Amino acid sequence: MSEKRVYFFGAGEADGSASDRKLLGGKGANLAEMTRMGLPVPPGFTVTTEVCNEFYRAGEKLPPGLSDEMLAAMARLEKLMDAKFGDNNNPLLVSVRSGSAFSMPGMMDTILNLGLNDKAVQGLAERADPRFAYDSYRRLIAMYGDVVLGVGADSHDHDPFDEAIAAKRRAHGVEHDHELGPDALKELVDEYKAIVEQATKTPFPQDPKVQLLGATSAVFKSWFNDRADTYRRINNIPGDLGTAVNIQAMVFGNMGPDCGTGVAFTRDPSDGTKRFYGEYLMNAQGEDVVAGIRTPLPINDSGGDSTDPSVTLEQRLPGLYRELDEIRHRLETHYKDMQDLEFTIQKDKLFLLQTRNGKRTAAAAVRIAVDFVHEGLIDKKEAIRRVTPAHVDQLLHPMLDPKATRQVVAKGLPASPGAATGKVVFSSEEAAERGARGESVILLRVETSPEDVAGMHHSSGVLTSRGGMTSHAAVVARGMGKPCVVGCAELTVNYELQQAESRGQIIKADETITIDGASGEVMMGEVATVQAGGSVQFDELMGWVDEVRRLKVRTNADTPNDAATARKFGAEGIGLCRTEHMFFEASRITAMREMIMAESEVGRRAALSKLAPMQRSDFEGIFKAMDGLPVTIRLLDPPLHEFLPHGDSEMEALAAVLSRDPDALKAKAAQLHEFNPMLGLRGCRLGIKHPEIYEMQTRAILEAAVIVQQAGVHVLPEIMVPLVSTWEELAKARELIERTAERVFEEQQKRVEFQIGTMIEIPRAALTADEIAAHADFFSFGTNDLTQMTFGISRDDAGSFLSDYVETGILPSEPFETIDIKGVGFLVNWARERGRSVKPRLKVGICGEHGGEPNSVDFCHRVGLDYVSCSPFRVPVARLAAAQASLREED
Amino acid sequence: MSEKRVYFFGAGEADGSASDRKLLGGKGANLAEMTRMGLPVPPGFTVTTEVCNEFYRAGEKLPPGLSDEMLAAMARLEKLMDAKFGDNNNPLLVSVRSGSAFSMPGMMDTILNLGLNDKAVQGLAERADPRFAYDSYRRLIAMYGDVVLGVGADSHDHDPFDEAIAAKRRAHGVEHDHELGPDALKELVDEYKAIVEQATKTPFPQDPKVQLLGATSAVFKSWFNDRADTYRRINNIPGDLGTAVNIQAMVFGNMGPDCGTGVAFTRDPSDGTKRFYGEYLMNAQGEDVVAGIRTPLPINDSGGDSTDPSVTLEQRLPGLYRELDEIRHRLETHYKDMQDLEFTIQKDKLFLLQTRNGKRTAAAAVRIAVDFVHEGLIDKKEAIRRVTPAHVDQLLHPMLDPKATRQVVAKGLPASPGAATGKVVFSSEEAAERGARGESVILLRVETSPEDVAGMHHSSGVLTSRGGMTSHAAVVARGMGKPCVVGCAELTVNYELQQAESRGQIIKADETITIDGASGEVMMGEVATVQAGGSVQFDELMGWVDEVRRLKVRTNADTPNDAATARKFGAEGIGLCRTEHMFFEASRITAMREMIMAESEVGRRAALSKLAPMQRSDFEGIFKAMDGLPVTIRLLDPPLHEFLPHGDSEMEALAAVLSRDPDALKAKAAQLHEFNPMLGLRGCRLGIKHPEIYEMQTRAILEAAVIVQQAGVHVLPEIMVPLVSTWEELAKARELIERTAERVFEEQQKRVEFQIGTMIEIPRAALTADEIAAHADFFSFGTNDLTQMTFGISRDDAGSFLSDYVETGILPSEPFETIDIKGVGFLVNWARERGRSVKPRLKVGICGEHGGEPNSVDFCHRVGLDYVSCSPFRVPVARLAAAQASLREED
Repeated sequence: MSEKRVYFFGAGEADGSASDRKLLGGKGANLAEMTRMGLPVPPGFTVTTEVCNEFYRAGEKLPPGLSDEMLAAMARLEKLMDAKFGDNNNPLLVSVRSGSAFSMPGMMDTILNLGLNDKAVQGLAERADPRFAYDSYRRLIAMYGDVVLGVGADSHDHDPFDEAIAAKRRAHGVEHDHELGPDALKELVDEYKAIVEQATKTPFPQDPKVQLLGATSAVFKSWFNDRADTYRRINNIPGDLGTAVNIQAMVFGNMGPDCGTGVAFTRDPSDGTKRFYGEYLMNAQGEDVVAGIRTPLPINDSGGDSTDPSVTLEQRLPGLYRELDEIRHRLETHYKDMQDLEFTIQKDKLFLLQTRNGKRTAAAAVRIAVDFVHEGLIDKKEAIRRVTPAHVDQLLHPMLDPKATRQVVAKGLPASPGAATGKVVFSSEEAAERGARGESVILLRVETSPEDVAGMHHSSGVLTSRGGMTSHAAVVARGMGKPCVVGCAELTVNYELQQAESRGQIIKADETITIDGASGEVMMGEVATVQAGGSVQFDELMGWVDEVRRLKVRTNADTPNDAATARKFGAEGIGLCRTEHMFFEASRITAMREMIMAESEVGRRAALSKLAPMQRSDFEGIFKAMDGLPVTIRLLDPPLHEFLPHGDSEMEALAAVLSRDPDALKAKAAQLHEFNPMLGLRGCRLGIKHPEIYEMQTRAILEAAVIVQQAGVHVLPEIMVPLVSTWEELAKARELIERTAERVFEEQQKRVEFQIGTMIEIPRAALTADEIAAHADFFSFGTNDLTQMTFGISRDDAGSFLSDYVETGILPSEPFETIDIKGVGFLVNWARERGRSVKPRLKVGICGEHGGEPNSVDFCHRVGLDYVSCSPFRVPVARLAAAQASLREED
Repeated sequence: MSEKRVYFFGAGEADGSASDRKLLGGKGANLAEMTRMGLPVPPGFTVTTEVCNEFYRAGEKLPPGLSDEMLAAMARLEKLMDAKFGDNNNPLLVSVRSGSAFSMPGMMDTILNLGLNDKAVQGLAERADPRFAYDSYRRLIAMYGDVVLGVGADSHDHDPFDEAIAAKRRAHGVEHDHELGPDALKELVDEYKAIVEQATKTPFPQDPKVQLLGATSAVFKSWFNDRADTYRRINNIPGDLGTAVNIQAMVFGNMGPDCGTGVAFTRDPSDGTKRFYGEYLMNAQGEDVVAGIRTPLPINDSGGDSTDPSVTLEQRLPGLYRELDEIRHRLETHYKDMQDLEFTIQKDKLFLLQTRNGKRTAAAAVRIAVDFVHEGLIDKKEAIRRVTPAHVDQLLHPMLDPKATRQVVAKGLPASPGAATGKVVFSSEEAAERGARGESVILLRVETSPEDVAGMHHSSGVLTSRGGMTSHAAVVARGMGKPCVVGCAELTVNYELQQAESRGQIIKADETITIDGASGEVMMGEVATVQAGGSVQFDELMGWVDEVRRLKVRTNADTPNDAATARKFGAEGIGLCRTEHMFFEASRITAMREMIMAESEVGRRAALSKLAPMQRSDFEGIFKAMDGLPVTIRLLDPPLHEFLPHGDSEMEALAAVLSRDPDALKAKAAQLHEFNPMLGLRGCRLGIKHPEIYEMQTRAILEAAVIVQQAGVHVLPEIMVPLVSTWEELAKARELIERTAERVFEEQQKRVEFQIGTMIEIPRAALTADEIAAHADFFSFGTNDLTQMTFGISRDDAGSFLSDYVETGILPSEPFETIDIKGVGFLVNWARERGRSVKPRLKVGICGEHGGEPNSVDFCHRVGLDYVSCSPFRVPVARLAAAQASLREED
C-alpha cells in the first residue's frame, strides 16, 4: 500500500501522473498529467483510492491523520491561489469530486463551491458580484444538504430545495433559476439553511474544514450507493477498486461576460472526422451546458453548418481559441487518443478542468483508429485494440436515430441487433404471406419453434415474450441478421384475441411498432432509423485484424445464400450447417413428415428418397459458395416430433395428404411425444435407431461433393455427428458413414476427400474425449447444448430465473451469451487437451452461439482452439475479437 | 501362453486341477480335480481354452499339430479303457463337450457317442445290446449332423432328424422314442445317414478321427454362436476367454437294468437343509432325467415325502449309495461349497461325470453359507462372499410359486421385485379409492406422475407401458417396496376404452392379472405366490455383514412409516427425505396449489402457512422414528407445475375451491408450463425465486426438531439444498436457512444442532465442487439427475433407445441402474476429491437410485464415500454389497 495519501497538483508540478490511474482515479491522474504538461489546470489535490478502502475498513471513518494531510495540501493550495479557505474577504472555494480508475459517469457525487459560509459569502459578494455569490452559496447548501447530510433522502418524490426554489420562481414570476436576482437568492440561502436545520436538527456547518471532511466522506460513501453498485455489476468493475476524491480550486465561468465554459472533442465523435468539435456558453457554469436551458454555441464553424460564424469562440476570442486548439493537439499527441475535454474561461483566462478519452460512435471509433495509424500516432495493433467488438456489431446493423423520440412500451432481451418497424402479426403463416408480398411485419409470438422459420424469414423483426438469448427465436434471428427482441416478459400475448398487452397498453394485430434489437426496447409506432454500414477505414482495419489473429473464423450457415453473405463478411468456412433447417420449407416438410410417420424402415426409405435430391442440391449450392473452404455439415439433430404439425386439424390435413388414418397418425405423434425433448431421442441417437436417415444424408452430401468437384469446385466436406455421449455411438455412426461413402464413390467412380467428426455438446463426451478422439477427425464444441447440460438449464425455460441470477450476482453473466469459464469452459479445455493427447493434430472448433461473442472468442483463443463459428453477421465481430485476443496474449 | 494344449485325466492322475479353471474351463478343471481326488471319473482329456483362441486367430482352423496331440491322448485313453477308438469289435466311445471358465449352461454344443460308425455299431450291438447300439448311433448321427455339419441349420421350423423319428414313431404306432425297437432304430440310422448325405453331398464320416476333429472344431465354433454371445453380454463375460473341449470316455446308464444315472445336490438347494438331495433313474441316460418323460426317483427318503422308500437308490443299491454319500461329503469338504453332481451307474459301477457349485434359492444360499461357518468349513467373510445381493433382494419379497403355471401376456422391465395379483384399474383415483377399501388392484398406466402416488400407494402392484428402470413409477414403487413392472412396450393402453392390448389379447378394466416385478412378466389371472422372508441365519449373516463393511447405509424415506421400515432393515439414517411427496396427499394438495397459483408473495405466504403445521408434524414423526440417527431433508425440488391438475374440468374445480377466476388460473398454469421441466425452474432455483417456500420448510424442520428434542429424542437434522450449479446459489440458500434458523431458535428459546449441505446432481456443481464445499457441511450425490445431465438423457424419454443401446453394446449397462463409471463416476470422484481438498472432513454420500445397486455400491466404496442411501427394501442389499466391496478391497 502506498504511504502517501494526498497527491498535490498545481503550477506545472504534480505528485502523480497519468500512470497513477488506479491510485488516483482517472480524473485525478489526468489532472496531474495535464498539470505536468504545463496546461492551465486549476490546482488541487487528490485523496487516493486506497484511503477509500481504509475508510470502509474502519467502518466508514476517515483514517486518523488524513485531516492533517489534507489541510497541509489546502495550505499549499491557498498559497498558489492567493486566497484563504474560509476567509471572510477572499475565500478560496473548492470542488470535491469522485474519480475511480474506470469511468462511472454520474454514478457518484460531487459538491461545488465548498468553503463558503455566511461570512465568506459576503466577502465574495463584495469582491465579485452579489448574485454570483449568493447563487454559489445556495448551490453549496443544496448539494451539501443532499449529498453529505442526506436531506430529502427519505423521499423519492419531492426534494425540499427544489420545492423552495420553485416557490421562489413563482413568487418572482420568473421561469428559470438564473432569472432570480441577488435578493431572491439571498432569501433562498436563508430558506435552504432552515431546511437543513429542520431536517438535521443542526445548523448548516459554517466551518469550511468541517465541510471539507464531510464532503470527502460523502464521496467515499457514494462508492457503494445503489446506482454505483448496479453500474459496476453491469460493467464488471470490481468493488474493491475504490474511488479517489479530487479537491480542486474552483474557477468560475459564470462570474461575468468575460467568463464562460465549454466541452470539446479533439475530433468529431459522431463520424471521426479530423476537426475540432465543441460547444461553449459565455457567463455560464458547466452544468448549464449540460442542462440544456440555454443553447450552447459551436466553438468554430468547421462543421459547415448554418450557424452565424460570429458567435463561435474562434471569432469571439481568437487568442483563447488558438490556445485551446493548441492544447487540443498537444492532448491528442500526448494521450494518443481522441480526447473529450472540459474547459472554463474565467475573466478571459482559459482553464482545463478535465480530459478523458472521448466516447464515440462505432463509425468514429473505426475512422479515428485508422487515421491515427496513418498519422503515425499509434500502430496497427493499437488501432485494433481501440475498436470494440460492439462497435463492429453496431456498424453492420441499422440503428434507431438517437435524436428520434420514442414511446417505449416494453423491454426484453436484445437478442439480435438492428432496428425494425412493421405491423404486428401473431401467426407465422400470416407473417410469411404478408412479408412475401413486401409488407413490413413484426412477428410477435410467445415463443418460436422451427415451424416459424419461414414466417421469421419474411418478417422485418421478431418479438417474443419468452425465451432467452439463445432461444430458438434469438438464434435463428441472429443467423438471419434480423432484428429480434426476446423474453419480453412484460408482454402478455393472447392469440385468441389477436392482441398483446404491456404496461397497460394494448397492442393489437396490424398496429405499427418498432423494436430495437440492440437495446431490447419495444416502441409504439414508427421510430426513425439510420442506416449504418462499412467504410474504407473499416475494410482497412479488418485487413489488419486478419494479419494479427490466430483463431480462424467460420460461420454457421444453412443455405447457399447465408454462406455467400458470411463469406463476404470474411468467413473462412462453414463451422455448422444444420441440415434440418432445410426440411422446414413447405415443399419438403411433407416428405419429412411422411418419413417420421412411416411405420417401417421401408416406408421411411421411400420418404427419404424424396428428400434426397433436395438435400443434394442444397449441398451443391453451399459447396459452390464455399469453394476452397471447409464445410462442416451436421447430420439430423432435433427430435422428430419438432417437424410434426400441432393441432388436430393440421394432423387431419396431413393424414389426407399421406392417405393415412388420422387416428393412427395421432397415435404415432403421441408416441413420439417427449417430456424433455432436449434430453430425448435426437442427434446420433436418431441416426443409430434409424440408420437410413444418416445414410440418405451422407449420400446427399457426398454425391453433391462429387458433382461440384467435377465442375471444378474445390470441396472440403466435413460430416459431423451430433449429440455423441460415448465413443461407441461415434464409432457406429462413423462405420455407417464410411460404408455409405464407399458405396457412393463406387457408384460415381470418383472419390472426394472428406472428414468425419463429432459435436462435443454432452458433458460425458467432454469427459471421455480421449476415447472419442480415437474415432474423430475433428471436434466441434456445441456450447449451447453443453451449457444446458452442464448447468442443467434449458435455455427455453431459463427466462423465469436466469436474468434474476445475473441481476443479483449469482451468475456473472448470462451463460448462454458469454461462455461460463469455470464449468463449460473447463469441459471445453479438458476435452481439447484429452482429445489432442490421443490425436495431437485433432482439429478443434466451437460452433455454439458463443462463437460470435467477444469474451467467449477470447476464451477460445486462450485455450488453443483452431476456430470459432458464428452466424454470418457476427463474423466480423468474431474476427476482431480473435485479433484482440491475440494481442492480449502478446501483452 | 501355455505350451501344453491337451491335459489328460484318468486313473487317479491328472495334468490339471481345479485351479486351472481359466485354461481348462470349469468342467475340465473339476474333472481333473475329481480324478486327482481318486473319485471314479471316466478318463479323458481337455483341449485348452487357449487353443480356442488360436483356432479363431487362424481363421477357424485347428492349429497344426493339435491333431497329433489329441490322438496321443486318445491312445492313452484306449489303454486305460481297454477299448479302441474306431475299433469294429470293441469301440471306445467318447463324448465331446464344451466348458468355459464361467458356467454358460446349454449355450454351447455337445456331441455324445463319438467313435461309432457302420462297423463299430455292429460290434457294439454284439458286445452290448442291439437296441442300445443303434440308438447310440442314431443319436450320434443326429447330433453330429446338427452341430458339426449344420444339417437343418437353414430352417428354424423343422428339424429333418426329428421329422424322420416322428414318422418312425407313427409307423410303429408308439408314442415315445424309447419304445422303438432295434430294427426301427437300425432303419432310422440309415434314414439319418441319407439325410446327412443329401444335405451335405457327402456321406456321414466313418473315420472316428475325422469325427473327433470335426466335433472339436464345432465346439470351438459354438463359442461365438448367437445364444452364447447374448448370454455373455447379459452376464458380462468377456468374449476372449474361449471354451475348452472335453473329450471323455462314455459311460452308459442305459445299457441295462444294472445301469442308471442321476443328479444330486450335497444339500437341499431349495432351503439349504443339510440333507443329501437327488434323483435318479435306472437304465437311462442323463438326458432322460432332464427330459421329464420318465419320472425320476429320490435317491433317499430324507425329504420325508410320501414316496415308497423301497424305490430309493439308498434301498436299492445301498453299497453304491454309501459310496455316493461318502463322495458327497468329500466333495463338500474339498470344494467348501454345496455341490451339484452328475453320476452314472454302468453295470453296478458308479461314475462321476461332473461336479460344480450348485445353484440354490436365496434362502438356501443364506442357510448354507451360515451353516458352513458353523461347521468350520469357511469363515464369516467367505460366507458374506457366497450370498449375492440378488439373493437378499429375493428374500425380502414374495415371489411367484415356481411350480405354478402362468399365461404370460406381456413382458416389461423388472422395476421393483415381488409378485402381485389384482384387478386392473386405469386411474389413480379409482385405485386409491378401491385399494383403500381393501380391494386388491393393479394400477395400469402409460406412465405415472407425482399425482399418482396415492393411487400407487393403495395398489397391490403397478404396471406401466412406458418409462425405464428409474422412471417415476419405478422409483416410487421401489421406495414403497411394491411390485412394479414398467416400460412394458407391448401394452397399448387406451384410457377411453378402459382397456389395454398386448399380443392380441385385450385386458379390460377389472380383469385380474398378476405381475412379477422380479422378471417383468405380466400374466392373465391369478398366479400362486409364495411368501419369502428372513430367517435366523439371515439375521446372523447380516450381523457379520455389518462387522465387515465400512460404507454406511442410509435410506430414502419420506414418511415416518417408511423410516421405521428402513430402520428395521438396518438403515443408519435417512439420506434423502423428499419433502414434496408430502404435498400430494389430498388434504394438502389444495393448499399447495393455492401457493402455486398465488399472484404475490403475500398470497404464497398465506398458503404456505396452511402447509407449515402439516410439514412440521411429518418431520416430528420422522425424527422420532430415526431417534439418534441423522435425517437429511431435501427442500422442495420439483417444478411447481407438477403439482397442478391436468385438464380443464379439474382446473375449474380448483378455481371454485380457491374462489379464483378459472381463466386466470389457466393462464397462470400455462405460464408455468416448461418445454424441458427437468432443466427448468426447480430445485434451489425455486427457493431463490420464492424464498418464502424454503423459509417455511426450514421453519417446519427446525420447529419439529426443537419439539422432539424437548421430548427426549436425539435429533440430527441435515437440511439439503437441491439442484445447485454454482456456489453462489448455495451461499444464498444457506444464508436464508441460517437466518430462519436463528429466528426459530430465538422464538423457541431452544437450539438444535443441524447441518446444511447440498445435492451434487448437476455436472457444473461436480466440476466446481471445491468452491461449493466451502459453503456445505455435506455433499449428497443425486446420481439420477447427474446421470441425466451427464449423458443428456431424460430417463422418462430414454425408453425409445436406451435398451437398444445396452443390447447392441453401445452401453455396457443401463446407466440409470448401474452407475456409469467413466462419466458420472468420474464426476462423483472428482467432486469428492475437490470437496475434501477444501474440507477434509466433508461428509459425502449418494442418494440416487444407484445407492441400492450392488455394482454402484462397490464403486461408492472404492471412491471413499461415507454412505449410500437407498429405498427401504434395498437397505439389506446395500449392506451386503458394501460388505462385499470391503472384502474385495482386502483381497
